[in-house]
Order: sequence, then structure tokens, then C-alpha cells
Amino acid sequence: MLTYDFDKRGEKPIYEWLYECMKNDILDGKIKAGEKLPSKRSLARHLEISVITVENAYAQLMVEGYVYGVEKKGYFVSRLEERIAQPKEPPRENCEEQHKKKYRYDLTANSTGVDHFPFSVWAKLLRKVLSEKKTEILMRSPYQGVLELREAISLHLYHFRGMSVEPSRIVVGAGTEYLYGMLIQLLGRDKIYGIENPGYQKIRKIYEKNDVQCRHLPLDKSGLSLEELEKNDVQIVHISPAHHFPTGIVMPIKRRQELLRWAQQEEGRYIIEDDYDSEFRFTGRPIPTMQSIDQQERIIYINTFSKTISPSMRISYLVLPNHLMERYNQELSFYSCTVPAFEQYTLAEFMKRGYLEQHINRMRNYYRSQRDALICALEKSSLADRMEITEEDAGLHFLVNIRTDRSLEELKRRVESAGVRLSWLDEYYYELLEHPPTTAVFNYSGISGEDISGVLKALEEAVW
Amino acid sequence: MLTYDFDKRGEKPIYEWLYECMKNDILDGKIKAGEKLPSKRSLARHLEISVITVENAYAQLMVEGYVYGVEKKGYFVSRLEERIAQPKEPPRENCEEQHKKKYRYDLTANSTGVDHFPFSVWAKLLRKVLSEKKTEILMRSPYQGVLELREAISLHLYHFRGMSVEPSRIVVGAGTEYLYGMLIQLLGRDKIYGIENPGYQKIRKIYEKNDVQCRHLPLDKSGLSLEELEKNDVQIVHISPAHHFPTGIVMPIKRRQELLRWAQQEEGRYIIEDDYDSEFRFTGRPIPTMQSIDQQERIIYINTFSKTISPSMRISYLVLPNHLMERYNQELSFYSCTVPAFEQYTLAEFMKRGYLEQHINRMRNYYRSQRDALICALEKSSLADRMEITEEDAGLHFLVNIRTDRSLEELKRRVESAGVRLSWLDEYYYELLEHPPTTAVFNYSGISGEDISGVLKALEEAVW
Repeated sequence: MLTYDFDKRGEKPIYEWLYECMKNDILDGKIKAGEKLPSKRSLARHLEISVITVENAYAQLMVEGYVYGVEKKGYFVSRLEERIAQPKEPPRENCEEQHKKKYRYDLTANSTGVDHFPFSVWAKLLRKVLSEKKTEILMRSPYQGVLELREAISLHLYHFRGMSVEPSRIVVGAGTEYLYGMLIQLLGRDKIYGIENPGYQKIRKIYEKNDVQCRHLPLDKSGLSLEELEKNDVQIVHISPAHHFPTGIVMPIKRRQELLRWAQQEEGRYIIEDDYDSEFRFTGRPIPTMQSIDQQERIIYINTFSKTISPSMRISYLVLPNHLMERYNQELSFYSCTVPAFEQYTLAEFMKRGYLEQHINRMRNYYRSQRDALICALEKSSLADRMEITEEDAGLHFLVNIRTDRSLEELKRRVESAGVRLSWLDEYYYELLEHPPTTAVFNYSGISGEDISGVLKALEEAVW
Repeated sequence: MLTYDFDKRGEKPIYEWLYECMKNDILDGKIKAGEKLPSKRSLARHLEISVITVENAYAQLMVEGYVYGVEKKGYFVSRLEERIAQPKEPPRENCEEQHKKKYRYDLTANSTGVDHFPFSVWAKLLRKVLSEKKTEILMRSPYQGVLELREAISLHLYHFRGMSVEPSRIVVGAGTEYLYGMLIQLLGRDKIYGIENPGYQKIRKIYEKNDVQCRHLPLDKSGLSLEELEKNDVQIVHISPAHHFPTGIVMPIKRRQELLRWAQQEEGRYIIEDDYDSEFRFTGRPIPTMQSIDQQERIIYINTFSKTISPSMRISYLVLPNHLMERYNQELSFYSCTVPAFEQYTLAEFMKRGYLEQHINRMRNYYRSQRDALICALEKSSLADRMEITEEDAGLHFLVNIRTDRSLEELKRRVESAGVRLSWLDEYYYELLEHPPTTAVFNYSGISGEDISGVLKALEEAVW
């Protein structure tokens, strides 16, 4: 009869050890298919264990299908395939290699320094939400996001962007990239999408990965060219009229009107207005949104808290025109909201109590001073008469055109080996440029004031 | 010359009021296209305001494209389209109607009661993460999720599911639904996907909304039928072998081996193993995963913290075979991780310190006692000899087959008007059944012990 060494079982319960031994014997063919197992009582007596222990082991073998019972006859071994070995070693230690090059200065990253995040306020609100909203934060939030947050966003849009948007037309989601995917599901995979060229590369990748036709549309000095839009049969176009990335173009009112008229001319045409960094305009008033002058339900507005709060907080939102919101309710409301309820309530409190406004104002001042310091240093440097700074009024970056006899490739190589990570305008084009401009994109949100002299020194070395 | 009433400007800065008045006059055609604006100096003198104020207003009009400057000549009005009125009323009050019927007892909801969530531990860990990980929680997390969390998941899988998985093969995302979408992008939209029928309806909707071919495969008593799989040319199949929803079938080892062999027979075949509630098995050991016996990289494992912690916490994860992880790294790593870094670090701490294990054990005991109480009440009720309870060993639901002369429709109506929300087995089929069983799915995670007698009373009324 089956005999097993129970001393080897270590910490395992006896029934589990018995189940494992028998399972292995069945898989190894030591107990043959069709063979009748000893009765529980006799096996228990033989192994000097209790009947209930054998019963538990048999039950587990039954549930997993290794044996089957025949009424009044007993237990029999199932007919299985040859053994499939089970890996048993613990997971290997993970040493994810850092493929990233180490740079001394990174002028490409969007990041908020620890010094600038309102940790104590945030901690206070977390505690408040955790103690006052116990029930709510454990409930699956509505698919659009929790009402408190949508109300706070609605008020924010009214006061800061002059937009009149009911909370019922807002959809909260885990990041802009996620929401692009939802828009494709909402608007249809059979449409032709248009994106700005140069532009933000991720959007193209998302459309590609979603098997959607996507045309790259060149810009003129007012932004997206209407002629190209028509020529390419685009139906849905993706733009950032308040501040194009990376060129910084502000789309003038005339082009906005033309685009709106274009959208109104045919059913199914929409403009996705990505308002990603409109909060950080340093001169004058914020640029109004196209959404606020759209009367034909053609504008889909999208924005994020990645720039205003932190890129690690994955909260973005859509504002949909009425008829699209209805379609969303009908067709996509089965998707759960992707943002944790806890995070949503905390952000809602942060906004309602005016902390977001405070924080944006503080960050705008900080970024302005960073920009001023960097520009000032550039202008005082030996590079001053070899470069031209443009589009410095808004956002967290500006363009620096460098006049040099070196090729762009050489320039990039030299800047890189000087320890400075920069991105370059040509990298935002969807095709290889024949004569790429020697224009760098300086993103200053990730460097500190103390870094500036180091950055300049490295750049001077590299360019000369 | 232009004259405006500055008393009407309210709280607005003078320059902003001037900009708005002029903008409206331009849009209304009161200042004509091509018209030359007064010089800054003369307008300032005329309006008795400072030159800098006029300058700011003109600058804003320039940036937005209402006027343009001609060197040495002055400022001119742009040629625009007819006015597009701007809505100005504040957003309407939102009174999202509660379309949901009000039930006294909800036996369909997956929810964790406030009494069962470890608030104080969670709060402690939140504070810890907030004070010790300041830098990390502001940084965009790696696209796969933060390493600490993936390490904790790897250990959890080893100890609880016998799986040997390196953290580098884990992808963390904002919910299972989101990860299904990523899998479609990873595996291809040109593949034929198979899902279990009956099954979890959301999966079908996600495949549909992603324009992916999806076949509904009938089950036999061992779960997914292999014959149907072959017949339907399915390449990627989605199953829950440890505990099928809603039938509760545990797939026996033989069928698992057959499925694995099927997957190995052709390139591009994969099995998505959804292990959604394996933690809550009440009798015997947890059912082993198919992933742990897969030696040919055919199993994609997916699981969630919605059941173990809370459905409001949107954290799920994938375990990919090596070659698919490489493909993910190459093709999908541009997507940012959708879960806030803060939440990821907190969960990692929760797991590393053994709180998740504690919590699961506590919840398993709680759910077991809920199940026992509900079954006991059913068996003592007047319904006892008119029903049959099955699949009660695991998960948070069981099936109750009710013998009655009433039609299913009538039964449903009566149960509903008795104030009990139940789901029914036929609702999980993808087609209309000719003879739908009068079988209800009792999910007991959302009701409390005190509710049970009320539920029973209502059901007795409805069934008799």
C-alpha cells in the first residue's frame, strides 16, 4: 500500500503532504490511471493518521481532478497526460538593469521637485478623507469618476478657463494616454485621425497601437494647416491650440474659427483640444479654450493634473459634448473608472479648498523664476550671440536655436557627452528632416537653480 | 476714439477689462478688420490709464490673434469670421438622477464593508510612504509599475500560488479591464479570441469595443470545451480555471493539460488565466494555477486586488511569459503606468509587512461565516426542499437552483419587487437560452449578517 515519509513534510499539514505525494505519484505514473485507491479507512490505518486527514487529501485530489469517485465503489485515478514538471525554485532575484544613460543635467524631464509639492496639506487631506469618507472610498466609484471631483473640476474650468461645463459631461481617467484609448473606442476605429507634425510623439504611437489611421499634418505659423486637414480626409484632429508642443505656437482666433467651421461642415468631425499646460502662461491672461466658443458640440476637451500637481498622479479628464457624453453613457459606461476613489476624493478636497489654485500660482512663479534665471544665464554666456530663444512665454520649456557650423548630429553627441540631456526639435517630427534645425527644446521643470551654472558650463563646452 | 466704462469691470484688472471690451468690439465688427488701432500712448491718454496697461491689453490681443502689428506702422485688426458667441453662464447645477432602483438587499455587489477594511493600518502606511518616499512618489513610476510592488507581488505569488515569477515579468495596471486592453494591443487585433459561455460579460464588451473577433465557447462539466475551441479557430482563450464565474467549475488537471497541449500546438496560441478570486477557497488548499505548470510560455496570468482589498482600489497585474514581456518592453513601454505611485508604494508596504496575508485570512473567515449563515438560513427556510445549492466551496458567491412552477421571468419580477437584487445564471450567457434555468447567483460579499433574515423573508414571499 502507498507509503510516505511524513517526517519530510516540514511545516505542511499532514493532509497537504499526503495530497502532494499522491499527486506526484499520479503524475509520475507510479499510481496508474484507472487504479483504485485504498479506502480512506484502510489508508489511514496503514499510515497511522486519522481518517479525516486522508479524507481531506482525497477531497483535494478530487477537486483538482487527479482522482474521481464512483458511488459505492471507491476512488480511482484519472487518465492524465504525461507529467508536466512544476517549477519549484523561488523567483530569481531581480536586478533590473539601468539601461538609462546617466546625465548630470536632465532638461527633458517633467518633474516636480520634492520642495515644491505641498506634502503637509496633502497629508492632512488624506487623513481627512480616510476618516470622513470610509464608506465612499471603499465603493467602486461611478464610471465617470466621483461626483465631488467632477464638481471641483467644473468649477475650476469655469474660474480658470472660462468654460461652462456640467459635471455630468466630465469623464475622469488614469492619465491622458488612457483617455485617448477611450476616445478611439468612443469615436470609432474606422475614422481618420490627424495629429500635429511636429508634435507629441506618444499620440502617434497610441493611434498606431490601436490600429487607427493617423495622418501627420504640417503646421504653418498659425498652427495646424487647414489645407492639409482637408487634403488628408481627416475626420478627427488632435491639437493643442493654447500652446503647441514643442513649437509653442498659440493658435490665433482666426485659425480657431476656421477649424471650428471645418468641424461643423461634416457629421462626425471632431477637434480634440489638448489643454495640457495652459496653467503656466507667464505673460498676460491664460489663452482662452476653443471649447468655450464651440456651439456645435465639435470640441472634445482633455486635460491632466500631471503638469499642475505631479506626473506620478495619474489623473486626467475629458469634457465631452452632450451628444458624445450620451454615447459614452450608452456604450462605454461598463468600464470602471480607472482612478482609485481615495485619490479622487483627496484631489477634490484639494481643489475645493483652493489649494490647487494656490499651488498653481506658486509653481507658476517658481517656473517663471527658473525660466528667467536660465534665459539670463544663457544671455550672459559665451553662447549669447550664437543663439536665439523663442516661445518662452508659456509652458515649462522654450526653444533655443543654436547657430553653429557643426552638424546637428555632432552637436547632439557633444551635448550628450558633456552630461546634458536635451531633446531637439527634429525629434518631434514624424519624418526625417532633410535640413533639421539645430534647435534644442529646453525643459526647465526638472532642474534646480543651483544646476544652472553647471548646465551653462557644459553647454558652452559642447557648442564651441 | 475707443471709449469704455471702466466702472463696470468689477474685480478685473484694467488691462483685462480693456482687452475684453476690444475683443468683443472686434468680434462684433464694431472695430472693423484692417482698421488701425490708436497708438498705445494716445489711447492711454484718452482713457486716462497708463501706457503699460494699454500695452498689456494689446499684447494679449496680439497673442490670441485679434490684432497684428506692422513694424513702424502700428496695430491693425485681423480679418475674422462672424462672431461666435461665448457662453458665459456658470455651469448648471448637477443633479445626476439616480436611475438605479433602490433595493433593500443587494446580492449582486462586490463590496467590502467598512468594518472589514484595515483603515488604521492603511493610514499608518500612507503616512509612512508620504514621509519616507517623498521623492519616489513624485516621480513617474516605471511603465511596469514600481519595483517594490512588483517584488511584493512576486513573493505573494510564490507563497500563495506556488508560482515562480521574476518581478521583471509583472505589469501593474489600473484594473483588469485596462489590462485586457493592453493585451489586445500586445497580442494583436487580428487574432480570434475565445471566452467562456456563460461567463463574465464585461470581457465580451471589451473585446467588442476593441473591434476584436470574439467567440463564445460553451462549457462542459470540466469547463471550456476543447472541441469548441478547435472548431472556432480560436487563437487566444480567456479562462478562469481555479473558479469559473458564475458556474464555479474548477477545471480538472486533465483538461488543463489538454488546453496547454492545444496552446503548444501552434505559434501564437495563448491562454489568459484569470485568477480573480482564488484567494477565497473555503475548503482544502487553493487550486494551483495553470501558469505554474506552463513550460512553453503559453500562459498569461492576470489577477487583481479588487476582491482581496477593495474594488475601489484600481490595481491589477499581468504576469507575462518571457517572450511576451520582451515584446511588451519593445512595443508598449511608451505607455505610462496607470496606477498612482503613491498607491503602489502603500500597497507594496501592505504586502511586505504581511498585512495582505492577514487581511485575506480574516476576510476568508468572514466570508465563510457569511456563506454558512446564509446557507444555513436557506436550509432552514420554507424554501429548503424547493432548492439546491451548488458551488459553495469558493469565491464570494454560490448558485441556488429553485424548483418552481413559475417562469423565470415571473420569478425575477417577484424577487425584485420583494426588494432583493439577485443576478441569474441565464444573464451570463451570450445568447438567449430556450430553457433558462431558474438558478440564481447569490453573491454574499455585500450583505451583512443582520440582513440575512430579511433576505430570506423576502425570498420566501417571492418564491411561494
